[in-house]
This record gives sequence, C-alpha cells and structure tokens, in this order.
Amino acid sequence: MTALVRFAIVAGCVAIAGAQSSRPRVRARDLGLTFGSMTPGPLNAITDVAGVLVGHATIVRGEGALKVGDGPVRTGVTAVLPRKDIWFNALFGATHTLNGDGEMTGTHWVRDLETIAHPILVTNTASVGSVHEAAMAYMNERHPGRDWGFLPIVAETWDGRLNDVRGLHVKRSHVFEALDHAAAGRVAEGNVGGGTGMIAYAFKGGIGTASRRLSAEEGGYTVGVLVQANFGSRDSLVIDGVPVGRELAKELLPEVKAEGQPNADHEGSVIAIVATDAPLSSRQLERVTRRAALGLARTGTYSGNTSGDIFLAFSTANVIPQQNTPKTLNVTLLSTDEINPIFRAVVEATEESVINAMTRAETMTGINGNTVHALPYDRLAAVMARYGRPLHR
Amino acid sequence: MTALVRFAIVAGCVAIAGAQSSRPRVRARDLGLTFGSMTPGPLNAITDVAGVLVGHATIVRGEGALKVGDGPVRTGVTAVLPRKDIWFNALFGATHTLNGDGEMTGTHWVRDLETIAHPILVTNTASVGSVHEAAMAYMNERHPGRDWGFLPIVAETWDGRLNDVRGLHVKRSHVFEALDHAAAGRVAEGNVGGGTGMIAYAFKGGIGTASRRLSAEEGGYTVGVLVQANFGSRDSLVIDGVPVGRELAKELLPEVKAEGQPNADHEGSVIAIVATDAPLSSRQLERVTRRAALGLARTGTYSGNTSGDIFLAFSTANVIPQQNTPKTLNVTLLSTDEINPIFRAVVEATEESVINAMTRAETMTGINGNTVHALPYDRLAAVMARYGRPLHR
Amino acid sequence: MTALVRFAIVAGCVAIAGAQSSRPRVRARDLGLTFGSMTPGPLNAITDVAGVLVGHATIVRGEGALKVGDGPVRTGVTAVLPRKDIWFNALFGATHTLNGDGEMTGTHWVRDLETIAHPILVTNTASVGSVHEAAMAYMNERHPGRDWGFLPIVAETWDGRLNDVRGLHVKRSHVFEALDHAAAGRVAEGNVGGGTGMIAYAFKGGIGTASRRLSAEEGGYTVGVLVQANFGSRDSLVIDGVPVGRELAKELLPEVKAEGQPNADHEGSVIAIVATDAPLSSRQLERVTRRAALGLARTGTYSGNTSGDIFLAFSTANVIPQQNTPKTLNVTLLSTDEINPIFRAVVEATEESVINAMTRAETMTGINGNTVHALPYDRLAAVMARYGRPLHR
Amino acid sequence: MTALVRFAIVAGCVAIAGAQSSRPRVRARDLGLTFGSMTPGPLNAITDVAGVLVGHATIVRGEGALKVGDGPVRTGVTAVLPRKDIWFNALFGATHTLNGDGEMTGTHWVRDLETIAHPILVTNTASVGSVHEAAMAYMNERHPGRDWGFLPIVAETWDGRLNDVRGLHVKRSHVFEALDHAAAGRVAEGNVGGGTGMIAYAFKGGIGTASRRLSAEEGGYTVGVLVQANFGSRDSLVIDGVPVGRELAKELLPEVKAEGQPNADHEGSVIAIVATDAPLSSRQLERVTRRAALGLARTGTYSGNTSGDIFLAFSTANVIPQQNTPKTLNVTLLSTDEINPIFRAVVEATEESVINAMTRAETMTGINGNTVHALPYDRLAAVMARYGRPLHR
Repeated sequence: MTALVRFAIVAGCVAIAGAQSSRPRVRARDLGLTFGSMTPGPLNAITDVAGVLVGHATIVRGEGALKVGDGPVRTGVTAVLPRKDIWFNALFGATHTLNGDGEMTGTHWVRDLETIAHPILVTNTASVGSVHEAAMAYMNERHPGRDWGFLPIVAETWDGRLNDVRGLHVKRSHVFEALDHAAAGRVAEGNVGGGTGMIAYAFKGGIGTASRRLSAEEGGYTVGVLVQANFGSRDSLVIDGVPVGRELAKELLPEVKAEGQPNADHEGSVIAIVATDAPLSSRQLERVTRRAALGLARTGTYSGNTSGDIFLAFSTANVIPQQNTPKTLNVTLLSTDEINPIFRAVVEATEESVINAMTRAETMTGINGNTVHALPYDRLAAVMARYGRPLHR
Repeated sequence: MTALVRFAIVAGCVAIAGAQSSRPRVRARDLGLTFGSMTPGPLNAITDVAGVLVGHATIVRGEGALKVGDGPVRTGVTAVLPRKDIWFNALFGATHTLNGDGEMTGTHWVRDLETIAHPILVTNTASVGSVHEAAMAYMNERHPGRDWGFLPIVAETWDGRLNDVRGLHVKRSHVFEALDHAAAGRVAEGNVGGGTGMIAYAFKGGIGTASRRLSAEEGGYTVGVLVQANFGSRDSLVIDGVPVGRELAKELLPEVKAEGQPNADHEGSVIAIVATDAPLSSRQLERVTRRAALGLARTGTYSGNTSGDIFLAFSTANVIPQQNTPKTLNVTLLSTDEINPIFRAVVEATEESVINAMTRAETMTGINGNTVHALPYDRLAAVMARYGRPLHR
Repeated sequence: MTALVRFAIVAGCVAIAGAQSSRPRVRARDLGLTFGSMTPGPLNAITDVAGVLVGHATIVRGEGALKVGDGPVRTGVTAVLPRKDIWFNALFGATHTLNGDGEMTGTHWVRDLETIAHPILVTNTASVGSVHEAAMAYMNERHPGRDWGFLPIVAETWDGRLNDVRGLHVKRSHVFEALDHAAAGRVAEGNVGGGTGMIAYAFKGGIGTASRRLSAEEGGYTVGVLVQANFGSRDSLVIDGVPVGRELAKELLPEVKAEGQPNADHEGSVIAIVATDAPLSSRQLERVTRRAALGLARTGTYSGNTSGDIFLAFSTANVIPQQNTPKTLNVTLLSTDEINPIFRAVVEATEESVINAMTRAETMTGINGNTVHALPYDRLAAVMARYGRPLHR
Repeated sequence: MTALVRFAIVAGCVAIAGAQSSRPRVRARDLGLTFGSMTPGPLNAITDVAGVLVGHATIVRGEGALKVGDGPVRTGVTAVLPRKDIWFNALFGATHTLNGDGEMTGTHWVRDLETIAHPILVTNTASVGSVHEAAMAYMNERHPGRDWGFLPIVAETWDGRLNDVRGLHVKRSHVFEALDHAAAGRVAEGNVGGGTGMIAYAFKGGIGTASRRLSAEEGGYTVGVLVQANFGSRDSLVIDGVPVGRELAKELLPEVKAEGQPNADHEGSVIAIVATDAPLSSRQLERVTRRAALGLARTGTYSGNTSGDIFLAFSTANVIPQQNTPKTLNVTLLSTDEINPIFRAVVEATEESVINAMTRAETMTGINGNTVHALPYDRLAAVMARYGRPLHR
C-alpha cells in the first residue's frame, strides 16, 4: 500500500483515504467540471430565482458509540421558502414521485389545489413528525391570525449510518432557526441542514444546488434546483458522462471490492426542489418535476427500490392570495411551445446540484465511528482526464 | 298476464312491454322528475355553454338476423365541438377514468398539454379506428394548411346487443356529417348518434344532456354535461334517490326475474363530457371530472368491472391559440374558493343527463330481433309516487 | 317557538334542539334505515374482516372559552391495524384522493411499494406531527429490533369548531393507548377516537363503520369500511336516497336559515378505510378506493373544495413478509371478473358507515360553548316516512 | 469542401455526407460501443424474453415530390406480441407517459385491468386509426369466436419529414403481415416496420432493441426492450456518456450551424416496450416503465414539449386467462427487494436500444428529396476516442 493510494474500510463503508486532503471543499465548477450547455445564474443556486429563501439548521454533536437519544448527532433541517410570505401568498406547484420509499407530506394538497402554500422542510426520516408539528407551531407563533391550511410540506431522507436518527434530535428550535434565518444569496452545501448526515453514491452527500438562466430570446427565465442527495450505489456514479464510480471502484484493493457492491443501504433517497420564475401552470410544473428524474439519471442512478425519490416544483411568477382572494385571478402562463429551454435547464441544474452536494461535502465520522468519505478530488481529476475531460483550473 | 302489465323475454333482455305506449318520449323534467337544487340553463343542455356545438350521425338500417357487415345497423357517432375552430384555438381540458375497460384516445395529450385541441367524437367500440382516421381526414380536407397535432379524441361504448358492431358501419361520411352539422341549440337525445344502440341500466339508453346555471353571486357560470349512457345493471338504477330498478324488478313475473340479475353484458360503459364557461385551470377541470363520477353514483352505479367510465371536461373561458401562439398567455382562472357551485352543478347535471338519455330513448329492436325496452313512464311514475315524489304534471 | 320544535343558534352552528332526546344513540339499522341490497357481516363493522383491529383514544376535557393549550379538548386518535403484526407482515394496499385538502402520510410508499406496512392512524389536523412521531416511538419501543420502514400512515380531519385543535392535545400516550388497545369485535362509533370532535353534514359526525358479506357463490368474502366523517354541507345530506338535509332545512325558522347555507367550514373532510379478505391486487384495491367515492356520493356530497377526502384500502388475503422475505412470493389474486360484488359492497358499506357515524354521535358542546347537534331521530323518521321509507321498528 | 467531409443541407436537415460509407450498418456493440455493466441476452433483443414475438411490415415506395396519397412512402408498422396467444392469455402490464404529445391507445384498460391482452402495434401518427381498425379485423378473422375486449394497443410517432404521412399508406394487409410474421429470434432494426421513416437526434432513427440477462443469483431473469426512436435534438445526443451530438455539431461548417439548432420538428417521440420474464406485478411494471425514462435520459434527451414519450411494460411470468378464467389465480410475484437488477437492466437496455436504432439505420431520402443521414461511424469513432472510449474492433 503506497502513501499515494491507501484504502480504508470503516464500518462497511469503503473510501479512498488518500482523497482526504486539506484542500477546502469547493463546488463542481470550481473543480473544472461542466454540466450541459446552458448558463448558470449568478449564484448557480436556487436562490437565483428571485424571492426564494433557503435556511439551514445543522446539528453536529458527540462522537463514538451510538446511544439512542444521546447521539452522536449528525443531522438537521433545511427550509426552502418559495416566498417570504408563502403562507399568505401561494404559488403554483406540483410534485412527482419517481420512487416511493420516502415521505413528502402535503402532496395531496399540492396535486389537487395546485399550489404551494407552505415552506418546504427537508430533514431526516424519523424527524418528519417533529418538524411537521414545529411547522404548525411556527405558523401559530409568527402568524397567529392565520388559522387555515394546516398542511406543512415535510420531506426526508435517512441518515442513520452517521446519525442517531432514532434519537429525534431535530427540535422545534431547529425548525424555527431554519425558517427564521432563511435568506437569499449564497446557499451552504454539503454537510448542512437536512443534508448533514447524508450519503450519495457511497460518498459523502448532502445539500446541493445549481441554476440555469435562459437567454433573453428564450424568455430570460431562471431555473434553480436544490437537492438533498442521499442516494445511489457507488458503481453507478456518473459525472458529466464519465463512469466515475466504476473507474474509482477499479482502483480499490481486492479485499475491499466486495464492500463496494450495490447495497440497499446505499440506495437512500433524494429530494429535489425546482424553482423558476417562468410563469408555469401547475401542469407544466408537473412536467418539470419529471425532468428532475432525467437530471438524476445523468448522475447514474436507476432509482433503487428503497429510494424515496420525490420532487417538487414551483413557479414564483403568479401569486395566489390565500386571504381576501379575488373571485378570479389574472395569471400569465408560458406557452407550452416555449417550455423546452425550461426542461433542459431542469435536467442540467438537477444533475449539477447532486454533484455539488458531493464536491462540497466533507468526509464525516458519525455514530460508532462510521466514516463516509468525501469524493476525492485528485482521483476524480484523474478519471475525468482519462475520459477526455481534463479539469483545467 | 293482464293487459296492463305484460312481460317480454327477448334474447335475454327483459323489459316491461306495457311500458311501450304511444306517448312521445320526453325529457326527465317533462315527466316531473327533479334533480338536485340548482337551476338548469335555458336548454338544459351542454349547448347552454356558449360556443359548444353538438352533431349526430345516426345509422339505423335493416332488421332480422345478424350478418356481420350487412347489419342490422343501430349505431352512429356524436361530435362535441368545444369551439367551432377547436383545431386552431384550444381550451383547457382534463380527463378522468373511473373504470378503464373502455377507450378514449387523445388523453395522453390532454393530461400533459392540458388542453383540448380537437372535437370529441363518441361512437361504438369497433369504430374507434375508422372514426379516428376520419377525424384526421376531416382536418386535412377542411383545414389543409393545418399540419400539426394529429391526435383526435375518440371515445366509445359497446352496442353489440342491438348493432352489427363488427360490421364497422360508421364510415368517414358519418364523421363528416356529425362534424359538419354540429350546432348550438337543442340537442337530440336517446337513440341518436353514438348513443343509437346503447343500453342503460338494462333499459334503452343513449345520448343525454343537462346543464346548470350558477347564480350571479356564484359567478353566473354555466355547466353542461353530455353523456353516452350504456352502463348499469337494472337492479342498481336510482332516480332522484328512489330505487327504481329494485322496485321495477319486484314486479317482474317469477320466470323472468333470473334475467333481470346483474350481468356483465349490462354493465356497459359511459362517456361523460363536461363543458363550462367558468375559467377553470386544467387541474380544476380534472377535479371536475372526478365529480362526474359522483353524479353517476347518484343513478345507482357502482362502476362495474367491464365498464369504460371515462370523463372529459373543458372550459371555454380561456383560449390557447395553436398558431402564432404568443410566448406568454394572459388567462383568467377561477379562485378555488369559488369552485363549489361548479362541483355541485357537475354532479347534478351528470345525474340528470343519464336519466334524460333513458327517458328520451325509445324501445329498440336490433340484431337477431333483440329488443331493449324504454324506461316505462307509467311504472316509473308509480314507483316515484310510492317514494314521496309524485310526478305531477 | 313551540316546545316541540325549538331552534338554537350557537356559534354559527344551527341545529334542532328538540332533537336532543334522552334516547340512546344507536346505529342506523337499529333505527330501521337500510342501505343497498347486500348483507352486512355479523358486526356490521370493519372488524368483520378477520384480523383487523381497531383502537380509539378519546380525549374530552374542559368546558367554556378556548384557551389554546388548555382546552376545552374534544379530540383523539383512532388506530386501524390491518394485522396485529402489520410492521412485520405487510398487506397489499392502495390509496385514492377524491379531494386533496387534507393529509394522509405514507402514501408515496403505498402507491409504489403497493403495500400497507404500518397501522393507519386517524386524528385531528394539527396532531399529524405528534402522532407521526409517536408512531415511530411505538415501533421503536415495542419492536426495538425493527429498524426499517419509518413511514407511518397518519390521516386527519379538522375539529377546530369543537376542539382546541392548536393545543396539540394528542400525546404519545394516546397513540400508544389506541395501538395497545386495538381489538377485534364491536367498534365504538360517533364521538370517539379521531372522530370525537368531528362534524358531518352540519350535524355531529365522527367514526362510523359497516360491512358487507358476499354470498358463498360470490366467494364469501367480507368487505369492511371505517370512516372518520367530518364533511358535507347540511343541505346536501341524503340518506337512502331521501334528501334529508333539504327537508330538515325547510323546517328551520326563517331567522336561522341563513346559517344553514353551505359553508366552507362545514365541508370538512372524510377519511375512509376499506378492508377486505378478498385476495385483491394493489391495482384492484386502487379500483376499490374509487368506489368509496361512489359510496360517499350516495350520502349527498359533491366533495367540496376544502375537503380532504382520502381513502385507503387493503386486503388481508396475501401476506408480504418484511423480514426474511423470500425472493418470490406465491399469492392468490381474485379474477377481475369476480370483482363486481366487492365494488358493490364497498359502495354500500361506505354509505352506511357515514350514516352510522351520524346516528351514533351525540350532541356535543366544545370550545366557546359551540354546540353541534346530533342528527335528530324523530325528525329523521318523519322525513323518511314522507319519502316512502317508514322506520318501522 | 473536401471529399472527406462534405456537408449537405436538405430541406432543413443537416448531416455529414461523408458518413455515408458503403460499410454495412451494424449494431452498437459491433462498433465497440458499450452500455452499462450488465450482460445482454443471447440476441441482445426483446425476443430474448421467451415467447415474445416481433413482426415488421415495411413500406418503401416512390421518390421525389410529395403527392399526398401517392407518396413517396417511407413507413410501416411493427407488432410486438407478448405471447402468440395474447388475445386469450393476458399478461400483467403497465404504461407510463413521460411526455404526452403522442398516442398509445388501450392504456385505460392497461392501467385499470392491469393486463396486456392485445399485441402492441407501433406505426406512424396518421395511421393509428387504420391500424386500430385492422387490429380488430385481424382478431375477428383469425379468432372469430372471440367477441370481447375490443381494445387494441396502437402507438405512434411522426414520420412526415420522409413519409407521405397523410397518405395513410399503412393498410390492413400490412397489419396482418406484421402480426402473421411476428417471430422469435433476431429482430430487424433501423429502417423497418413502424421505424422506417423515423429520425433520432436529427440522424436516421427507427426500431432498436436490446436486452439484459440477470445473473443466476439475481434470479436469472431477462429484460428486453424495443424502441421506435424518433426523438431528440442533435446537440443533445449522448452515447455512453460522451456528448456526441455536441462534438459532431462543432465540425459543421459555419453556414449550416444554424440548421443544427434544437428544433421542434426534431423532437419527435419515442415508444418504448419493455418485456421481462421476471414475475412482476402490474405496479412493479409501472415502476419499470419509469426506469425507461432514465434509460432515455442517458442518450441525452430532456423529453421535449412536442414529444410523445410513452412506455409500456409486461411480464410473461404469470398468465391471466381471458376465457374460462378461474375465480382466483395463483400467481408468483417477485419480492420488491429483488427488483433492483431489473431496474438497472431496464435503464441499460433502453439506452442501448436507442443507439442500436441509430447505428443500424441507413441514410434515407424520402418526400421532396428530404434526406436524413445515418449516424456516421467514422466520426462517431473519432469522438468516442477523444473521450477515452476507443472503439477497438
């Protein structure tokens, strides 16, 4: 075993220890990776869509053996507010489930009432209940006059490999923190918020985001995506068309190859949220959510059986007041003939969001000393170069 | 057997022969029946929705033994044009399938593109293909410049008990006739168009229509329904809450009771088309189509296994040009808070449409001497009176 | 105002005070009402389906003015266990949403994995979160070895007219109580469990149940339904085809008629759970859930805009082990040709369940002295008699 | 313009003329291309699934200017028979629509009755009607005793760039030919059957097929896919992760680049049929159809607005007799825990089917001299080599 390439087997999770350099974790484009042909927005984030706010509450506490209720804790909650006043001014929205082993509450409303009227909260699987209750409490405390529409949107993926998921560590205060501090501007990625303890393609995953801006001729609209990436078997990972997972697997020492096989535990789930300022109808937004699946497919997934791959999309263009609603609403809708650049943007931004989650996430050690390694930059660069995509930066 | 009540057993179809009076067949309200609490439009027909046109081609020819290809023929095709120029100016639309043993082509488009861009044609099961081809031919001949969107909407129910359904008697000329003569105003009901050979609740069925007009406070909108009714087992029939089917069955002579039992052949299918000038989104229209199911339920059906219960709804309020379409459309949408009277209207008008089909339909003898009797007015009146609903007219 | 008929206007809820007799509240059939033509099971309850357990935790505490967090409390939670060991042995299942202004968690799994693998918990709107969390805690405490499938099924309707719904009074202990005490046998109805504070057709509603047993020739299967009925505007109420709501409304004094009008608050929601031992596939069960809508339609509803009308069905016939699952399962499925009696049974049992909830529920006074009156037996009898259905018992 | 690379602009369709070598068109693997990591079946075709038959009728006639009704004709029809006796012995099936600007008839049945009970016929857009009628005629002539289930499955894509699509040249005899000659064994690809005049990623497309065989440990099942590929804008084309479309576009002469831009005409549609002998339920098959979308995504598509991307899947493992059906069926179903290799196989085989359609298709000239060029082998090899995938054969 050389110093250059050393392998670690930690609690069933195999990674290339040599990948853990002190180099700060950056976004995929900062590494020289590219995705598709369209232009990102200024922040290359879901917050490029004007009005969209993102807030995280990250909970990292303790080390060592798991003691349910005590920790170690590696979890959190992420809030996406389609508008600051989303409780009072709803937006057209839609959802789609690519694979159903997961949860997103509030979708009966979205499908039938065709609007998003609450923030979207993403957390770990066991905390859906407490986050749901906290979302109601937040509304009651911050907006005591509002007494309708008790239907929060809470989605989840499972972080039990690194986190004391049964310990129910996401408290009301964390939900309030994520909502109160939700902001426009740059979005923290990787091991933050709901993504703190998540795993993607058997590397460290978490929160990722990206955006695309259409040309003026195409309408000048922005499409932003945010994912909580916790899915994929390692050998499936594809980046910009390159079979990175397969190539990295080749370099594993023989004794660890067996550990690298597809594994239900690694399948996880992915939540994708798509925002746009293009004036889309709820039906057009439903079509948009199906394109999120196409974007994920570019990262190699076949959407495994135990994955909860659930997507939500909204448009900020038309506002549907929830109070003193006029009897009829004048809305603007994009002609369906103009929707192709939107579809393309969704595919590209979803793909890039997943890889951003991975390139930004840092190696993490959680419960029982379980370690999940970050995607190693140097090895990634070597593989990309072999496939005609040198990361020249 | 008295002269008053005589029973006939003809080819497995049992009916009360005494019911065949010379009294002309009228609409349900003309008999004194009522449905719900809302007010019908002036014509109590789908054509109360301004711009909607209906045309029938009715084919009745021959008697006696079935000879496939020769007849006897008891069939036709009914055309509903949401607008005269529907090929060029589409409308928001939606579909719903309550039970899937049936066909309505063109629904992939409706669900995804959220519009109705073609006339709706309703015919017999075996003629779906020829009517589909004729619909394309019509477009090519009447609108030669139009070269997009080859996706006709053709629905069907099965008339093989009375009609030489395998003989494929609905020709291109019939489709042209139904489309060319489609008109506003009164709508022929019963044994006309696609409904010619249809059977409802083991009585003669066919085409029926009804409408409701909302009060000015409710928006003043109109909801119209047209059904091709070919469904239901006799014992299930309910009219205005009265178990008419069960009561009539009690009066059958013992030897014919066995024939009156539920029977897959009698389940048939029902196509319901809902039109409104309320400015509904495609999602709201999808919700509307689910209410058509509730209206059918009021007539007693449990939607049997071999039924093709397929519904389509459209709104005439917003026009989506299919040529020179602007990049964005300004549309008006009804606030969801205002939709309840629409839902109620759909339920009531669907219920009444089915009964209109039955009260207007006349007893018919078709292939192999098979006779299906019309719903008998006198017996109906007697049953309704026993249940507190005297038909005082 | 006579002694015989006195009207009360309490907090916008109008009812016939004279209806409050001391006569104990009984089931609909005990009043002489009938529904459809099929035969109920021995208990006329969902528990006629062997293995199905039902448990309630009912919370009634305090009187007078609402003080959020203190009460008065009129709420609870109802648990339906498809099997005692449902966490370990799943059953085929399906869901359907007739109108989406409501919540039932866990449905992404049901639709895609096609099984029910958790108890079904029904509570008030604001308690979805705490019940969800409690359901996980229950699994962890009672089945500590089970570490998969964190996807509870929690449904709700809104009881805020009578209950301090924001006070979040459904605690972990109540969920444990409902689950621990779930039992076969007779099912408490009316003001119990999740149904404690619910309102149906502007009368007191709550939990109701009914069943149908198919003839031996039809397979001898049982279909059971349980509803949490909290829906419907008063004027819409229909019982066995009789427009009871409209007729009762006629008798209201002029000054209270305005209060009896359709009202969004009265629309509420309804959760319906259908159980059967017929060996149905998940797709057949989805078809079954659509028939629950037809059963509700018979009680007069048009499924209002603010209603969460969500249905779930399961079959106890085939067991899908969640541990040591064999690679292939041998299952028995009902031929689709045999499904009609099942459909009919679902329609009839759903209709009867709703009316049972109303005939069993007692008049209740809750927060701020708000009173909701029980359906008055004497007036009901008078109306039914006028419509040819004397309640001769 | 050199002899080596000459560009043609024909009727808005730009291709590399130098690509037209005399080298026979082969399958993608014969060029050295690879797709995924699983092993194809012996034929690498949908017919690797035992019992599945494929038949084509190809109609190529005439040259020069379009004269509607006369030609030139470049079209046909392809039949996939899940079983030779599919009319009498149905199979579990499912469908999914990724984008709805297209037609597949018979899907209401498939979704609700959960079976495929007819051959699947794929043709051009305008011939849906005549093929539908011919499918009924075939059943009547070949199986005169069968008088139920008149619900053929007919899908389409649009070939009007090369074919006189309005001329309606697919006659009854062609449908009979495709059905009568449907066979196991090798499957003709490219310009055959329904795929004759189709275009994929602005190169010549058509029929393609591929398969995967699972290891014995995974169950030893086979998954086969057949596509009629008529979709995609050129710049989107990806092959094994390599942006082939983008790279080839770079080599176009400046004056033709404008022609290579994304274009609604090039979006077309794709029909994908997935067969497997794994014992899947209809719900599992629905999940399978969603994976076909992921396979298409690997070829670069974002599923454009005017595309009819409609998928159908069936399992040959369980037979549902349509005559003398027993009251209950004993069926074997795959545990959902075992489904991942099936999903992966669907993704890989769908991807490869599309590329097979392209590598097998030959350059074609159709109406008005319109030429669509085949994917050029030499240029493809050059691009693949630049991206680390030398085609060493």
